[in-house]
Amino acid sequence: MAPEQISPDSPADVARLVIGVLGGTGDQGRGLARRLALAGSQVIIGSRDPGRAVAAAASIGRPPQLTGAANADAARAADVVIAAMPWDGHRELLESLAGVLEGKILIDCVNPLGFDSRGAYPLEVPEGSAAQQAAAVLPGTRVVGAFHHVSAVLLLDPEVAELDLDVLVLGDDRHATDVVQALAGRIAGVRGVYAGRLRNCGQVEALTANLVSVNRRYKAHAGLRITDI
Amino acid sequence: MAPEQISPDSPADVARLVIGVLGGTGDQGRGLARRLALAGSQVIIGSRDPGRAVAAAASIGRPPQLTGAANADAARAADVVIAAMPWDGHRELLESLAGVLEGKILIDCVNPLGFDSRGAYPLEVPEGSAAQQAAAVLPGTRVVGAFHHVSAVLLLDPEVAELDLDVLVLGDDRHATDVVQALAGRIAGVRGVYAGRLRNCGQVEALTANLVSVNRRYKAHAGLRITDI
Repeated sequence: MAPEQISPDSPADVARLVIGVLGGTGDQGRGLARRLALAGSQVIIGSRDPGRAVAAAASIGRPPQLTGAANADAARAADVVIAAMPWDGHRELLESLAGVLEGKILIDCVNPLGFDSRGAYPLEVPEGSAAQQAAAVLPGTRVVGAFHHVSAVLLLDPEVAELDLDVLVLGDDRHATDVVQALAGRIAGVRGVYAGRLRNCGQVEALTANLVSVNRRYKAHAGLRITDI
Repeated sequence: MAPEQISPDSPADVARLVIGVLGGTGDQGRGLARRLALAGSQVIIGSRDPGRAVAAAASIGRPPQLTGAANADAARAADVVIAAMPWDGHRELLESLAGVLEGKILIDCVNPLGFDSRGAYPLEVPEGSAAQQAAAVLPGTRVVGAFHHVSAVLLLDPEVAELDLDVLVLGDDRHATDVVQALAGRIAGVRGVYAGRLRNCGQVEALTANLVSVNRRYKAHAGLRITDI
């Protein structure tokens, strides 16, 4: 199914989307893969090493709709691709997949953060944000920023049936952001909220540093909710 | 009462703090002054023009604990000073008050934003954020970032008895952030949440651009809540 044919207003359409997760063997990638698979989506975890991708999928244990493959194969088979690789390697991996990602929706959830003795802090990104870097290296791809603030611990915790947070969704392509909002809404306890254009994604990524501070101070796995909507 | 003697754990202590609001005739300043006065605090609205400050206080109509004065007089009489002037003029006004603000807590709620046909976007701030600029020009002042995301419309609306949001409080001085959290918590419906050091204030200020986008899309006055704490 080409992205052009998806209606974000049709739950059935969004449910049929195949999701690829680049760098999906990390905690964030595995966590999102797990929750989307639990919601009924077909999900392919991607990795440089296909063997590790298959092992990561098996560790979550929901075959057949959760499988593993090399990053390029996961991207090729998917309708919507989540970029969940470490920031270090973000540009390089996306550049190498530019052809495969042409025309698809790419959801960037990467947070460019540094850590020192005082905690987390945002790294300088020449393009303004990871999502804008993705858009710069993938001119033929519909880049959306989302899923920045979702705790990997909670995503992976089998005791947590429902999350309690809004996913901020950013992008310049209305259809793409609508699809991603609908996709976020398939995860139990999550609401997808449109939160601006891609040029305003830098502070959303950087805000993850503040949530790290909140988590330290309050011994929590903090999330965001937007009030009055 | 000197800030050193305030116990943030004692509601009585925080209630006795005199609050000055620099640039308090703008919507944000008047709104915060109004809510803090409604909570029982003594509040002095400051302005370049003392006559305008007095008129702004009278327009809210809660004398005697809400008054107006020249910015320097408001700062001098206050225990805690809120910087609510426009970004354009932020540095200059604070520099001119450096002596008066020595040793006090300054709460910076200024959002350096630009606006164009596509909406709001964060401005480049050489120091990283308005709050860090305040700390740079006021080395003897205990600078805290807070109240960035509070809707002036809701603050000023007499029909709105309670807000519904968390105020993110940022700073490097634990006692000062504790006091500001307690102060925020005096406003009906508001909780003060510690959200990191001053170096992580830039993205909190910039996130106001995203809330502008949310407000446009959803016809709302959006606020933030932090979940799991």
